[in-house]
Amino acid sequence: MTNEKNYRIGIDLGGTNIKVGIVDQSQKIIASHSVKTLANRDYTEVIKDMADAVLFVLEKTGISLSECKALGIGSPGCIDSKNGIVVFAGNLNWEHVPILQELKKYIDLPMGLSNDANCAALGEVVGGAAMEYDNAIMITLGTGVGGGIVMDKKIFEGGHAGGAELGHITIVSGGEYCTCGRHGCFEAYSSATALIRDTKRAAQQHPESLLNTLCNGNIEEINGITPFDAAKKGDAAGKEVVENYIKYLGEGIVNMVNIFRPDVVLLSGGVCNQGTYLTDPLNAYIKKYCFAGERAFIPPIIRATLGNDAGIIGAASIVE
Amino acid sequence: MTNEKNYRIGIDLGGTNIKVGIVDQSQKIIASHSVKTLANRDYTEVIKDMADAVLFVLEKTGISLSECKALGIGSPGCIDSKNGIVVFAGNLNWEHVPILQELKKYIDLPMGLSNDANCAALGEVVGGAAMEYDNAIMITLGTGVGGGIVMDKKIFEGGHAGGAELGHITIVSGGEYCTCGRHGCFEAYSSATALIRDTKRAAQQHPESLLNTLCNGNIEEINGITPFDAAKKGDAAGKEVVENYIKYLGEGIVNMVNIFRPDVVLLSGGVCNQGTYLTDPLNAYIKKYCFAGERAFIPPIIRATLGNDAGIIGAASIVE
Repeated sequence: MTNEKNYRIGIDLGGTNIKVGIVDQSQKIIASHSVKTLANRDYTEVIKDMADAVLFVLEKTGISLSECKALGIGSPGCIDSKNGIVVFAGNLNWEHVPILQELKKYIDLPMGLSNDANCAALGEVVGGAAMEYDNAIMITLGTGVGGGIVMDKKIFEGGHAGGAELGHITIVSGGEYCTCGRHGCFEAYSSATALIRDTKRAAQQHPESLLNTLCNGNIEEINGITPFDAAKKGDAAGKEVVENYIKYLGEGIVNMVNIFRPDVVLLSGGVCNQGTYLTDPLNAYIKKYCFAGERAFIPPIIRATLGNDAGIIGAASIVE
Repeated sequence: MTNEKNYRIGIDLGGTNIKVGIVDQSQKIIASHSVKTLANRDYTEVIKDMADAVLFVLEKTGISLSECKALGIGSPGCIDSKNGIVVFAGNLNWEHVPILQELKKYIDLPMGLSNDANCAALGEVVGGAAMEYDNAIMITLGTGVGGGIVMDKKIFEGGHAGGAELGHITIVSGGEYCTCGRHGCFEAYSSATALIRDTKRAAQQHPESLLNTLCNGNIEEINGITPFDAAKKGDAAGKEVVENYIKYLGEGIVNMVNIFRPDVVLLSGGVCNQGTYLTDPLNAYIKKYCFAGERAFIPPIIRATLGNDAGIIGAASIVE
């Protein structure tokens, strides 16, 4: 037993799995454990399993609670971090769950809670692609568009639960339907879901296009790679889909820069596997359109590096 | 002479006038003085006049510098507040002007600098409509759309100069041209300039409309009141202009709420003289469209109360 607190515990709570990790001072996950969320139970049971998973992974690695400085949870949904409450999380079917209060029944540590996208952003700042920066915006291009804001190496959430929802900024008012109930959100143009939707439409409108060949004539096989593959082979319809996607993603990023003017913009999610094919035109786009142009600082747009670990690493650092 | 520092000095620097005010502890301007900016001179001359105006108003009121806690400047343009530099201000014709360094040659006080819209927001929080709140977004509907962000009773500017430009968030990508070089900015839909543009268009498209009667058949006489007057008298074209204006303003405000989730949203500028005719439908709009709906906190939208004094009062409080 030692009194040195060399470890932190991060929990990535998802609709399917609860992932627990022990993070050391070099921001590496030295041990982890995953259990099923089984979200359709009473929340007290889910949180009991969460506590058991933490205690299990500690025991497995021979680390005691007294060696841990803090525990943090990244949760989907709308989070009241000040009070440790999940206000609303659709994929957990939770409303007003006092998650930290419940978890403290089992584990005695300083605890923090934030939205999963915010945790991922903080993870990249403390231990990933943005380690040399204090201020970062991270945009995760997945089923939706997740946004995380880190200012002065701390998560920025706004005044009340329901802030930092960067995916739900309309960029085309009255445009494509968004799951949030509005039309034209950033998410409705820049998520992988939106990219696939637009690729399917283009395939149908252009029967001659390579988009149809690449999916073997079955548009249900189209994924987020299809339009890039077609574009790289010179397919006009594929190019148009990719150019539009980059344009709207650029619009959303310029908006974020004009508000937060961060040191860096991080992108994550499968679409980022396109690498510089995606980031080069985006960097050119924002250089052209950010407010005050090159008279003001224009942040680089780079890829996040931690992948799925970012959420655990960031959650572990919520408590300072 | 006393050592009690009961006063603060606020300066509202504009393209036409430099307004200096002494602010007391109850956040009232107890004395003020205004001089012409005459911006086409060397900046050192402008700043010398600024210093003289400060010393003049102090002498006039019999308050010594030693009774003043701090001095703050609200400037138009893109501001590097950390280094006290006006990076770029079109209506001053300034680039990279080290305003605080220059002013300190004449006045020995702790000094702060911020964008004028941010100062106005802070003014309303320390001494105006938002005194009971810690977090506020203020949107000024004038020639452009100015945005000010106050979090924890402090101005929030983002990481680098050129943040907090809330007017330059595209809400209709590819839409109306904006002076910033993009198309479809919030400003291009919600400024008084945009309202007048849309009213003129409606008057031309609907020769039978009251819009044409109200301007005596001369559309150049149309102002920001015209569409509201027509709408209140039941004119269909006027109603459509007002409804569209409120819709886009609502879109912009929902975007701000989804990012900052403030305690309150303040509106200022001449259009706000419409009072609840403007704010009632806006409050209804954001209740419907903010992320997570009524499960999350939805801030009230209210009118700012300090008018042109907000900038001086806020500037005076930049230094804590």
